[in-house]
Amino acid sequence: MFKTVEVSLLYDFYGQLLTEKQQKVLELYYNDDLSLGEIAEILTITRQAVYDNIKRAEKSLYNYENKLRLVKKFLIQNDKIRNLKNKLVHYRNEKEVSNFKMQELLRNIEEDIEKLLID
Amino acid sequence: MFKTVEVSLLYDFYGQLLTEKQQKVLELYYNDDLSLGEIAEILTITRQAVYDNIKRAEKSLYNYENKLRLVKKFLIQNDKIRNLKNKLVHYRNEKEVSNFKMQELLRNIEEDIEKLLID
Repeated sequence: MFKTVEVSLLYDFYGQLLTEKQQKVLELYYNDDLSLGEIAEILTITRQAVYDNIKRAEKSLYNYENKLRLVKKFLIQNDKIRNLKNKLVHYRNEKEVSNFKMQELLRNIEEDIEKLLID
Repeated sequence: MFKTVEVSLLYDFYGQLLTEKQQKVLELYYNDDLSLGEIAEILTITRQAVYDNIKRAEKSLYNYENKLRLVKKFLIQNDKIRNLKNKLVHYRNEKEVSNFKMQELLRNIEEDIEKLLID
């Protein structure tokens, strides 16, 4: 995963645990795609302070993920859901499926859905 | 939801953010169902200290949930999955469904699964 995507995802999950300043800096840097210099100007702090804030904020986000692993669980869950969806598309495209076979397919999907609940 | 269930769930999500002592106390109290007195004896601290630790730990867990709302999202997601499963059981019990109708049902399930991904 690209680091930008990874940090954005971590921020979606844990951003509220950061200080307001850290949140502000990360948003300007990652969401608004501003440079360190531009952010420094907006917040009237030094470029170095912006840099330090970003690094500290990122470190916090990774620390939260190391402890809680919620982003990882979320990604695994989403993968399972996506796979299930692909399976369904595949079933749907099968022509002339007997009722008996369809019952089997539905039972199969049910099991997959059951597994989604465990996480 | 009963408070015990609620705290257990919060603990599953955010427990790793508590101090080691808070984790220990909550586990003895909620998982092992020990009394304050018993926990005090095990940890060789006062009954009052056990009580304070539990209250502080619970407060932290609720604070994390107030900020992150991850347990709430998880419960909503699980409800959706459970509803989808019930829908499938219902479909599966329908007798003599035409292929056309079955295609429609599958498309319907696909849409439900698609919605699971958005959260």
